[in-house]
Amino acid sequence: MSELRKDLISGRWVIIATERSKRPDDFRPAAGTPRAEEAPGFCPFCEGNEAKTPPEVFAIPRGPRLPNTPNWSVRVVPNKFPALGIEGDLTREAVGIFDKVAGIGAHEVIVETPDHLRPMADLTPPEIALVFRAWRDRIIDLRRDTRIRYVLLFKNHGREAGASLYHPHSQLIATPIIPTVVVQELNVAREHWGHKERCVFCDLIAQERALGDRVAIETDRFVLLEPFASAFPFESWILPKRHGHDFALCSDDLLEDLARLLHDFLRRIRALLDDPPYNLILHTAPSPHPRPGQPEFWSTIEYDFHWHIEFIPRITRIAGFEWGSGYSINPTPPEEAARFLRDVIVEAS
Amino acid sequence: MSELRKDLISGRWVIIATERSKRPDDFRPAAGTPRAEEAPGFCPFCEGNEAKTPPEVFAIPRGPRLPNTPNWSVRVVPNKFPALGIEGDLTREAVGIFDKVAGIGAHEVIVETPDHLRPMADLTPPEIALVFRAWRDRIIDLRRDTRIRYVLLFKNHGREAGASLYHPHSQLIATPIIPTVVVQELNVAREHWGHKERCVFCDLIAQERALGDRVAIETDRFVLLEPFASAFPFESWILPKRHGHDFALCSDDLLEDLARLLHDFLRRIRALLDDPPYNLILHTAPSPHPRPGQPEFWSTIEYDFHWHIEFIPRITRIAGFEWGSGYSINPTPPEEAARFLRDVIVEAS
Repeated sequence: MSELRKDLISGRWVIIATERSKRPDDFRPAAGTPRAEEAPGFCPFCEGNEAKTPPEVFAIPRGPRLPNTPNWSVRVVPNKFPALGIEGDLTREAVGIFDKVAGIGAHEVIVETPDHLRPMADLTPPEIALVFRAWRDRIIDLRRDTRIRYVLLFKNHGREAGASLYHPHSQLIATPIIPTVVVQELNVAREHWGHKERCVFCDLIAQERALGDRVAIETDRFVLLEPFASAFPFESWILPKRHGHDFALCSDDLLEDLARLLHDFLRRIRALLDDPPYNLILHTAPSPHPRPGQPEFWSTIEYDFHWHIEFIPRITRIAGFEWGSGYSINPTPPEEAARFLRDVIVEAS
Repeated sequence: MSELRKDLISGRWVIIATERSKRPDDFRPAAGTPRAEEAPGFCPFCEGNEAKTPPEVFAIPRGPRLPNTPNWSVRVVPNKFPALGIEGDLTREAVGIFDKVAGIGAHEVIVETPDHLRPMADLTPPEIALVFRAWRDRIIDLRRDTRIRYVLLFKNHGREAGASLYHPHSQLIATPIIPTVVVQELNVAREHWGHKERCVFCDLIAQERALGDRVAIETDRFVLLEPFASAFPFESWILPKRHGHDFALCSDDLLEDLARLLHDFLRRIRALLDDPPYNLILHTAPSPHPRPGQPEFWSTIEYDFHWHIEFIPRITRIAGFEWGSGYSINPTPPEEAARFLRDVIVEAS
């Protein structure tokens, strides 16, 4: 079983993933991007190959079907080599001066389309909305497991961004500890609300819409902006204009508007940056199971937190300075990135 | 001039590096590793090409020489495209709800050898010791500038690790703010000392030497271990066994022992992982210029902090989960990595 271990000095948690155990020889470099041609016939995510994955946990059918057969639009299956597993007890232990926790959780793959050759930027907005519905429904289901404190949804596109299979898919990892990055956001949001009785994200959206120079796209209900302290060129945040702390509470209607924006954005990015590798990460509220003694995490979360999606194109490298400092060096000011995004002309496909 | 900007939500600082300003077209991928053959004749770091760099700020001569001429062992020059610049006032400003600081600091390149074709693993221990002497002397010199709060020394080897030139070199970036990662370490160390009057790193070294399973190499004065919560396969820390908070206080003698260990280690890593890209990062005490109102940062630093070097091979990818959580997924338990490092046989060159 995997283990969660905490670093004594940095405070960072790491998953020692024994299911994925690798010896030195396994690290010989795999160059380039996963190619479309890489075995569409054998791809475990393709329609017709349902038997090649662990049994599905969720699917959006295109018509009448049995589980693990064709005729689906979106299909969710457990990861074959999970970083965290659902079986076992959630033990917490000291190892001398160190801390470890059993690797309990879930690791699932959301297959976004039956079609091997249609990356997310080529899906229609209604098809993208189905992917978001799958995200939402898996979060709701996994939160029923009280051992799980957070469900992290993310997408890796391209090998440089961590994708090992070409077939369009996103993933979720459900963890028994709220991830550091999320705790930091929750703390900042709660503190801001404590001082001002206002949501820090709502304040940020109001300022950025008023200034305008970092806003790239707006729809009725969403805004896409380049953050003031973008760590990467073309880092982008998508935020609902109306306050909402939890992605799991989104209506189908809201998800459709979100899908329209993401469709538009991914096509602009592809035109500007030549189909870059990227990560897409959902930031939403944790599971509503307060850790004993920490009710304050949940007392104002409805008001203080604001769900959003972060997009990071992987076109610059993380080097020694970034690891050693926690800083980034970004050669493209967000105001310029926003201008490029507003001005780019996307050809109809 | 560059700007340091702080993200309101994550608290992370980013350097918006206008000197390195890049448009979308500049991000077309540069594949593979910088090759040895990439223009040794034109390389600005090669002996004889001293005029191709900005004027040197430091050098270790091999014999009598004038500045910016051949006959050196190690040479330090300002980076031609600096992330931070030395000229100007250290202004701090609000931008609406955001914070920014002028991009004051220094960005230098330590050319580790006159020879284009000798990566650090091929330098002799006495040659590596000269590189460390250059690191030490640059830290001491830059600390005289009271605007500078930290001098970060690091090395990127291989394109995947961020190196854009093949010629063996390390870099330093001196910042007007103590980097987040360093602040975190200082806080943990100070807190541990506050509770126990012991150095947390000394405690860690004592435990790991007693257990032995994560210790890979020991010399008289140093230990190299795989940290309990290694974020990456073969992540390694080199720590002096005898407590010391500041690399800048190391004697030549100590640096020579350190160089022997690093030489041994780099050859083991090269044999195990086929010359992987890697980052090497020095963690040492900040400049002794306390920020007004923060004397507590320096009150016990001599006792509580312990300088060390972190080594990260870049053989796994940072993907959406890692960005979204702050966690890592490591497929190689550190106990196994330590065993591989102990057992590998390095052929004499």
